[in-house]
Amino acid sequence: MTTVVLLSGPNLNLLGEREPLIYGNATLDEHVEAFRSELGDRFDVRHVQSNHEGELIDAIQAARDDAAAIVINAAAFSHYAWGLHDALAAFEGPVVEVHLSNPYAREGWRRTSVVSPVADGVICGFGGTGYRFAAQAVKELLAR
Amino acid sequence: MTTVVLLSGPNLNLLGEREPLIYGNATLDEHVEAFRSELGDRFDVRHVQSNHEGELIDAIQAARDDAAAIVINAAAFSHYAWGLHDALAAFEGPVVEVHLSNPYAREGWRRTSVVSPVADGVICGFGGTGYRFAAQAVKELLAR
Amino acid sequence: MTTVVLLSGPNLNLLGEREPLIYGNATLDEHVEAFRSELGDRFDVRHVQSNHEGELIDAIQAARDDAAAIVINAAAFSHYAWGLHDALAAFEGPVVEVHLSNPYAREGWRRTSVVSPVADGVICGFGGTGYRFAAQAVKELLAR
Amino acid sequence: MTTVVLLSGPNLNLLGEREPLIYGNATLDEHVEAFRSELGDRFDVRHVQSNHEGELIDAIQAARDDAAAIVINAAAFSHYAWGLHDALAAFEGPVVEVHLSNPYAREGWRRTSVVSPVADGVICGFGGTGYRFAAQAVKELLAR
Amino acid sequence: MTTVVLLSGPNLNLLGEREPLIYGNATLDEHVEAFRSELGDRFDVRHVQSNHEGELIDAIQAARDDAAAIVINAAAFSHYAWGLHDALAAFEGPVVEVHLSNPYAREGWRRTSVVSPVADGVICGFGGTGYRFAAQAVKELLAR
Amino acid sequence: MTTVVLLSGPNLNLLGEREPLIYGNATLDEHVEAFRSELGDRFDVRHVQSNHEGELIDAIQAARDDAAAIVINAAAFSHYAWGLHDALAAFEGPVVEVHLSNPYAREGWRRTSVVSPVADGVICGFGGTGYRFAAQAVKELLAR
Amino acid sequence: MTTVVLLSGPNLNLLGEREPLIYGNATLDEHVEAFRSELGDRFDVRHVQSNHEGELIDAIQAARDDAAAIVINAAAFSHYAWGLHDALAAFEGPVVEVHLSNPYAREGWRRTSVVSPVADGVICGFGGTGYRFAAQAVKELLAR
Amino acid sequence: MTTVVLLSGPNLNLLGEREPLIYGNATLDEHVEAFRSELGDRFDVRHVQSNHEGELIDAIQAARDDAAAIVINAAAFSHYAWGLHDALAAFEGPVVEVHLSNPYAREGWRRTSVVSPVADGVICGFGGTGYRFAAQAVKELLAR
Amino acid sequence: MTTVVLLSGPNLNLLGEREPLIYGNATLDEHVEAFRSELGDRFDVRHVQSNHEGELIDAIQAARDDAAAIVINAAAFSHYAWGLHDALAAFEGPVVEVHLSNPYAREGWRRTSVVSPVADGVICGFGGTGYRFAAQAVKELLAR
Amino acid sequence: MTTVVLLSGPNLNLLGEREPLIYGNATLDEHVEAFRSELGDRFDVRHVQSNHEGELIDAIQAARDDAAAIVINAAAFSHYAWGLHDALAAFEGPVVEVHLSNPYAREGWRRTSVVSPVADGVICGFGGTGYRFAAQAVKELLAR
Amino acid sequence: MTTVVLLSGPNLNLLGEREPLIYGNATLDEHVEAFRSELGDRFDVRHVQSNHEGELIDAIQAARDDAAAIVINAAAFSHYAWGLHDALAAFEGPVVEVHLSNPYAREGWRRTSVVSPVADGVICGFGGTGYRFAAQAVKELLAR
Amino acid sequence: MTTVVLLSGPNLNLLGEREPLIYGNATLDEHVEAFRSELGDRFDVRHVQSNHEGELIDAIQAARDDAAAIVINAAAFSHYAWGLHDALAAFEGPVVEVHLSNPYAREGWRRTSVVSPVADGVICGFGGTGYRFAAQAVKELLAR
Repeated sequence: MTTVVLLSGPNLNLLGEREPLIYGNATLDEHVEAFRSELGDRFDVRHVQSNHEGELIDAIQAARDDAAAIVINAAAFSHYAWGLHDALAAFEGPVVEVHLSNPYAREGWRRTSVVSPVADGVICGFGGTGYRFAAQAVKELLAR
Repeated sequence: MTTVVLLSGPNLNLLGEREPLIYGNATLDEHVEAFRSELGDRFDVRHVQSNHEGELIDAIQAARDDAAAIVINAAAFSHYAWGLHDALAAFEGPVVEVHLSNPYAREGWRRTSVVSPVADGVICGFGGTGYRFAAQAVKELLAR
Repeated sequence: MTTVVLLSGPNLNLLGEREPLIYGNATLDEHVEAFRSELGDRFDVRHVQSNHEGELIDAIQAARDDAAAIVINAAAFSHYAWGLHDALAAFEGPVVEVHLSNPYAREGWRRTSVVSPVADGVICGFGGTGYRFAAQAVKELLAR
Repeated sequence: MTTVVLLSGPNLNLLGEREPLIYGNATLDEHVEAFRSELGDRFDVRHVQSNHEGELIDAIQAARDDAAAIVINAAAFSHYAWGLHDALAAFEGPVVEVHLSNPYAREGWRRTSVVSPVADGVICGFGGTGYRFAAQAVKELLAR
Repeated sequence: MTTVVLLSGPNLNLLGEREPLIYGNATLDEHVEAFRSELGDRFDVRHVQSNHEGELIDAIQAARDDAAAIVINAAAFSHYAWGLHDALAAFEGPVVEVHLSNPYAREGWRRTSVVSPVADGVICGFGGTGYRFAAQAVKELLAR
Repeated sequence: MTTVVLLSGPNLNLLGEREPLIYGNATLDEHVEAFRSELGDRFDVRHVQSNHEGELIDAIQAARDDAAAIVINAAAFSHYAWGLHDALAAFEGPVVEVHLSNPYAREGWRRTSVVSPVADGVICGFGGTGYRFAAQAVKELLAR
Repeated sequence: MTTVVLLSGPNLNLLGEREPLIYGNATLDEHVEAFRSELGDRFDVRHVQSNHEGELIDAIQAARDDAAAIVINAAAFSHYAWGLHDALAAFEGPVVEVHLSNPYAREGWRRTSVVSPVADGVICGFGGTGYRFAAQAVKELLAR
Repeated sequence: MTTVVLLSGPNLNLLGEREPLIYGNATLDEHVEAFRSELGDRFDVRHVQSNHEGELIDAIQAARDDAAAIVINAAAFSHYAWGLHDALAAFEGPVVEVHLSNPYAREGWRRTSVVSPVADGVICGFGGTGYRFAAQAVKELLAR
Repeated sequence: MTTVVLLSGPNLNLLGEREPLIYGNATLDEHVEAFRSELGDRFDVRHVQSNHEGELIDAIQAARDDAAAIVINAAAFSHYAWGLHDALAAFEGPVVEVHLSNPYAREGWRRTSVVSPVADGVICGFGGTGYRFAAQAVKELLAR
Repeated sequence: MTTVVLLSGPNLNLLGEREPLIYGNATLDEHVEAFRSELGDRFDVRHVQSNHEGELIDAIQAARDDAAAIVINAAAFSHYAWGLHDALAAFEGPVVEVHLSNPYAREGWRRTSVVSPVADGVICGFGGTGYRFAAQAVKELLAR
Repeated sequence: MTTVVLLSGPNLNLLGEREPLIYGNATLDEHVEAFRSELGDRFDVRHVQSNHEGELIDAIQAARDDAAAIVINAAAFSHYAWGLHDALAAFEGPVVEVHLSNPYAREGWRRTSVVSPVADGVICGFGGTGYRFAAQAVKELLAR
Repeated sequence: MTTVVLLSGPNLNLLGEREPLIYGNATLDEHVEAFRSELGDRFDVRHVQSNHEGELIDAIQAARDDAAAIVINAAAFSHYAWGLHDALAAFEGPVVEVHLSNPYAREGWRRTSVVSPVADGVICGFGGTGYRFAAQAVKELLAR
């Protein structure tokens, strides 16, 4: 079994309820489940949602021990939490950045991501489908 | 009973001791008490002070379940913690921002607030009196 | 009797008619009256509304002779009229800045205030209630 | 009779004498007359030239009572007098901005206009002809 | 017969269909016809619409041989295509810039025009009427 | 059959030869083929590669007649060709932006995209896999 | 007799009382008198102090009729009142700018002057002595 | 015994493993030990490493009770965590900032430190030796 | 025979006629001829002038097949056409950038070149002589 | 005898020959003489002109021993030579800054002065007369 | 004997006299002596203080011949003298930057150092102790 | 004999030893010799290399007496030494700027040149060949 860590940043636990016009109606659990099912049986998904930057850093560090890849939707942390940047930079496997909405079509401050410079790739604006793409991307990147 | 959540950001627990020329001599407890008493018997105040952005986000999310309004002095978090912004944007009741000092008369970096764009109103520079105004504002906003 | 000068900047005389979704339905007279009544009998309110920066400077200078405090909603002048800044800096009593709407949630140019650096405190976004808070603030600041 | 308010900002009373290479030889009276004659008999033109921002705001406010449209050459006020912006925003009829010279081919500070964002249209660089265009534009905008 | 070149930048061929709330319902052909008819019998209009900056430059260069004036709505090219700027600078007759909408009331990037510094005058925000003004302006500028 | 337009910006015809460390070894034909095959039999792919912004605008306009979706890798045009932005804004179906490399991890000027604000979603950094995701995204967006 | 116009911007009427550590103890009348006496018998000084930009523009325009030179301390207007700039640009005689304090050693916004680009020379930081220098400068500039 | 608080920001627990070319081969424990030994017997070192800004703020606040000095390597928090700035500003003893690498020779965002303005001194680029210098600095600063 | 590609950007076909004070009296043909003759018999010059960025990109790509070096005067394209940058980056031989005038002594927007970062060397301000230098530079760079 | 140090920055030794339209026809010796004569018999002038920032710093330091005041025209050094700033800050007597031309009416880079923040006053644009004013200013400042 | 070059920038020869609240009471000689003694017998210190950037560059170049390391306090030169940057970049041994005060807690222009990007490490804010740390750092860096 | 002054800025005396990958292996003497030989017998070359801005200014001033042209590689001084700019502006003959490397392909601060605005032409990136071009340019410019 290959472990993949899926990280969800602040307020993503509200998905399904919060601003559905922007973020859609699916819950975070449904997104996680879709991700898991897209990865398939050979992968184990460890999901961590947190409103604490520190817990996400902890989870990234823990991934160094046993995980092959990280998929991260850092939500609002994407725009200032350089601690995540440094943690991801210290992870050797592939890193995939996902956003449900398209931050490049929103407020100016959402156009900067501290995650992007250390991500292999970025997927944004496709809602829950983005998680499925991320799962495929992980499989592909690990297969290289 | 109507619940109002009062949030205090980092280092506000030091009030009364820390830089009294700027922040005054009253303790945070005294401010909370004044807020509570100004709101009166029909309101229940849930106060959360934290030096952790995540705990304040948690408290804002919890407020979605049972609170009618949020009053927040985000202190230093005001200037960069966009996670608070997104959490407050997902809260449907009124949001009032309070600062003890007047950040617009201080260092440049204190002139940007991530809370203001999602607040109904802002009160700053009146020391503890600001909490009393915030209590009145909450009552008025809820009465509309 | 203690005199308090209340200043209203350009276009505030249109309140009640102009963009009510932003500025509310109350007229300026109603706001002045609320302010007066909140201050109570021991205070005399001298209200000056003007579309001329110069008249507001004149009124601030006149306040030096007999007024104990100034409350100012400089409206659009807030964003460029440094002449007001210098006049207020030469006034020794407390200065309170009020805005009906929350300029920090509007266009970028509304986020700079030339009044704020010389104000004791700022109140914005509470509509007419802001005037009542300003009255209370004045009483409290004078009592110190 | 339909009233149209024509506003002329600071120093435009010097037209014909001041920097004719930039602003041409015609006097302001001649421009007003050309404007009046282009509008024709069914329109009444109320012209206000002032070097005082406040008087122009007053004139815009007065236009709310009886005028159908505003044509404004705010001259130097175009570049900083946000009080004009707010007054024009509170006027419900069409607003046309005119400049005799082409400010976009001059100093950098002339490239920002506080009037443009609240104008239906902008005409610049055509000297006195611009006033005739403005008259036609007003007729057309009122006819819609 | 005097030749006037009328240039239409990218996507203007979609007029009438594309975002009619912003650009109106008239087609480009209708605008060209109005322009032609406003100019009258003594003028020959050569219209070039292109989505290629190069073709517009070619047309400006060709105008050097036989045309007396250029009227240009460079659409999106207005904001970055400095090649148009240089071509227009090499044309000796009058240049009039037209925009259907008012770019100064839209996104920030629409507020810079590479055409304006080499245009005699600018007309924007009057929809199709702007073409009629441009025709009149050309006649007037040529008559000087 | 549903038509999907796939657009490739300047220099993408060199894929496979040009800077393979950044862009990979696959040729553009291979990417187009993968895209086509991922879409499946029910879709017709019309691919246009061009080093001319104008030809890409033409192709976007043509898509308005018969295509259901657009997938675009605008390459260097992404960073300044606002003509593409306006053309895409006039297209009513879904728009997906793809980049082979991750521009947010490269030079500063690659961090601005004129396509992103009018795209439903953005995929970057996954090499040829990005085209497969884009195909899936199109199917999903059309299914909504 | 040669007329020289001396202009004093907003709040200068408070000199002697206002922030004496910055502006000194002399009153404006004393400064005017020193200026007059330095100019001597052959000059007539017309002094205008105003808190209204418009009145200062009026005075500059009036100076075109009968005055040989202008000396201006525009105070806070120096930093934004472009209407003064344009009025001074239309005056043909020498223009001297004076400041009591040294604005280049104070807040950032005081470092921009709209008067300087149209002044022959600038004197700042010498308190009342600056007026005497200005008088000498006027005599010298007129003698050239 | 004098207590000195040593604080280590996010990801420093990975030292020795993470990017050794930049950060060296020593572990954090080794750095702490070197620090302790350099301070000597008369000092008690309380070390807190955390990936949570809040825990570091808590530790700084706790230091107010019993510690004489703070040495802090805030790692990525250095560049945005103003909550640390305010907490350190409320600490009365000496504060020494340490960085293993030289942030001024790295990415632009590493050149801003929210800690530096409230630190007595800064040491960067000397790897583990920096901790020894910090220990000496503390002893010296306390001896003053 | 070694092939050298000489590229001329927009409006250079007007040389000799256009703004001769800036660009000189020689025609483009004369410059090309001087370039050819300086290179001598062992070199074949393929010259492409175009007002279309796309044609210049095509020509750069074609150079990959049979040319040893590229000399480019991108004229106005120099300042924004990043498509040229990417095409040149994919060319393996030497690239020499030439400008007839000295753009660093002209308008601000002419001070940025998208070509310079991928050029071996830059020659500007020497008029036609620049082409002779470019020819010599090519010979020398190929001889290394 | 009181010593006053007069400092002249780079290229001022060329006065009288260099760009007389900007700097006038008088030589530096003539300016020094005028300065000396304005100061009168009770003052000894030590003049140092240098094209070396270091020599000017040396002269400022030497002034600490025996000079009562410094008058400095730092010419081009004014705009970047912070070493002069620090040297002047360490001088306890009055410092007067002089410029022959008015740098605020010239290129942008001439609008920043590293001398102004440490000068008591600034005189610019009056040509040689500025030296006479500086002499008077020195006498006045020393008399306080 | 190993030679270490110690460089002191402009105005440091005034140490002990100049602004002692910022720079302390020790003289430069005392700092040099402390540095020498900390290095110990096996090292030869060549100290150069200069107010001339050129002399410091000369000294850095000379160090290439016989010195093992450079310690530099460039004082005001730190903020603009790129010539020092290039000289240091050409030195192969370790480079240590020292500042007596903490420039990051002072004026904005002191926060940029042209030395830092080519220094191994930076020490600031510890007064004379910084020289002792620099001596230790040199020994350690040479020992690697 | 015609004299040409060749100026070499800071650190160029290290050529051949310093960073040969960037600056090449030739020594400065070799470059000077190549320059001299390219100019030929009818020219006398006066070469000045200095690490002192002042010495280069002195040399430029001296050139006014007897030299016909100046060729300058100001090295690091190019980016801030405005004293050179003013000296060159006062020289009436042609000025040619040379750089061995291509500063536009290096760090951001190397992209500003204070020399370029006063140079007739600029040559960069061709190593020693640039000196030969400069010699030819001088001959050509003098022949005009």
